[in-house]
Amino acid sequence: MIVVGHKNPDTDTIISSIAYAQLCNSTGKNAKACRLGELNAETEFVLAKFGLSAPQMLQDINNTFALVDHNSLEESAPGLDETKIVEVIDHHKISLKTSNPIFVHIEPLGSTATIVYKLFKQKNVAVDQKLAGALLAAILSDTVIFKSPTTTNEDKTIANELAKIAGITDLISFGVEVKKKKADFSKTSALEIVVTDAKEFAFGKKKACIAQVEVFDWALKDKKKELVDAMKQKKGSVDIYALMITNIVTEETLMLYVGDEESVKKSFSAGKFGENEVLLANTLSRKKQIVPPLQKVCEL
Amino acid sequence: MIVVGHKNPDTDTIISSIAYAQLCNSTGKNAKACRLGELNAETEFVLAKFGLSAPQMLQDINNTFALVDHNSLEESAPGLDETKIVEVIDHHKISLKTSNPIFVHIEPLGSTATIVYKLFKQKNVAVDQKLAGALLAAILSDTVIFKSPTTTNEDKTIANELAKIAGITDLISFGVEVKKKKADFSKTSALEIVVTDAKEFAFGKKKACIAQVEVFDWALKDKKKELVDAMKQKKGSVDIYALMITNIVTEETLMLYVGDEESVKKSFSAGKFGENEVLLANTLSRKKQIVPPLQKVCEL
Repeated sequence: MIVVGHKNPDTDTIISSIAYAQLCNSTGKNAKACRLGELNAETEFVLAKFGLSAPQMLQDINNTFALVDHNSLEESAPGLDETKIVEVIDHHKISLKTSNPIFVHIEPLGSTATIVYKLFKQKNVAVDQKLAGALLAAILSDTVIFKSPTTTNEDKTIANELAKIAGITDLISFGVEVKKKKADFSKTSALEIVVTDAKEFAFGKKKACIAQVEVFDWALKDKKKELVDAMKQKKGSVDIYALMITNIVTEETLMLYVGDEESVKKSFSAGKFGENEVLLANTLSRKKQIVPPLQKVCEL
Repeated sequence: MIVVGHKNPDTDTIISSIAYAQLCNSTGKNAKACRLGELNAETEFVLAKFGLSAPQMLQDINNTFALVDHNSLEESAPGLDETKIVEVIDHHKISLKTSNPIFVHIEPLGSTATIVYKLFKQKNVAVDQKLAGALLAAILSDTVIFKSPTTTNEDKTIANELAKIAGITDLISFGVEVKKKKADFSKTSALEIVVTDAKEFAFGKKKACIAQVEVFDWALKDKKKELVDAMKQKKGSVDIYALMITNIVTEETLMLYVGDEESVKKSFSAGKFGENEVLLANTLSRKKQIVPPLQKVCEL
């Protein structure tokens, strides 16, 4: 069985697939983690810091699959169909349809890493110091250092347990250290920025692609024109292409977008609109704050 | 939170909703089991034998819901939409789509009761003698006394654990005692028989309704004409209306059907066809042996 996270892998997807494959192997189920894309700077830092090897790029879809940190075919390996999927471990909305019952464990927690660690505990398998540190980094990354509205008390409790095993005392500083690794876009081209952590969604008959960067300042605002041009270039056949520029410090998201302006305006009527942009206060989470209103409007 | 099983409730759906509500209440989450229809004779026997009260009929959908033993809106409370569903505990294919992450625990096991008992163990909550007996009855009922191809080793292991708690020594005899309670149709009208355990499915653009009775002999064959007439009367707007007459002893299913004959013939080409009927060898499970081939053909 191949354990695979989503396209455009982030730290939670990579660490959760490594950890879940390790758990399967510890309990007698042969499993191997694979990835669907290049690692970002944050994930590379986490793997190096805790001495873990990166999963190999997926080569062959003739296997059975456990999907971690996603459950939609759009975000999974190209060509994969539901008949090959035997397990899902995730914290997103349900998108997958199957024709047979499979193992599905979805919980509305802040990170998949939290769920995977719960599964280690359920199966009484110990997590070593390195994996504990990496799982902690994944939780801090995906919950935006506990600031995201997706964060639950369970994420915090488990992060503290993992911090003890990993010997990390200051979670917040460690979280900032992790998050800063992918917050510097000074040397990144606009075309690269607008595909960062991009996810595709099918909302009724409409398709949307939503990328997200997390930053500690508004330096990216100066690149707005290039970013909008790059999004127009990348848009292809989707109806809406958006880039969330999420400021971790101010807890706002400046969302740049091209395409179906009417749906965006209807979905985020409380936002401050400008040309190809909307500024959203108290907004950090794509899953909880961007996807549901957009889906509702697009599916009307 | 209301814990609710599927329409046309069977023993697994009723006992699992009672047990899961009890588990939630034991762990500080306020929950109440409700049902969506009349109890069958088997479930009434199980509740009476173990001194459990039947869940009340659902009156009000202005609540949050945990769905047990189903995850499709077609099989759930009329008027219920996904925004009210906060949990799913099930052993069927994934049908539900949500716009937010919710708690989902689906396992490809023989009964939902098996999964609910695993959750008791995970949360270190003890199951008393009465509930253990009822959960055991639900497992034996849903796995057709371990004959159904949906049965796993985990169902058998857990059934044996529950039998010890319940003080039941001969599982097979107990299973036959339970199953026989709803296998006598000598006094039941054809119109009632063809809605027994009926479930509706949306397969692409087609709809199917598949009822199922489990019997110990072929006495029902004598009523074929009345049953086919009753199905024509009940069919309404669905494309296929079918009644699985599943013989537990011979492990065959005689499926009577009306409607889209072409799809049925394509789906079960190995069966022995007669007028409005197909005899299927080694077939006990709607979920595993009837729904997947029919869905595949209808969605082509």
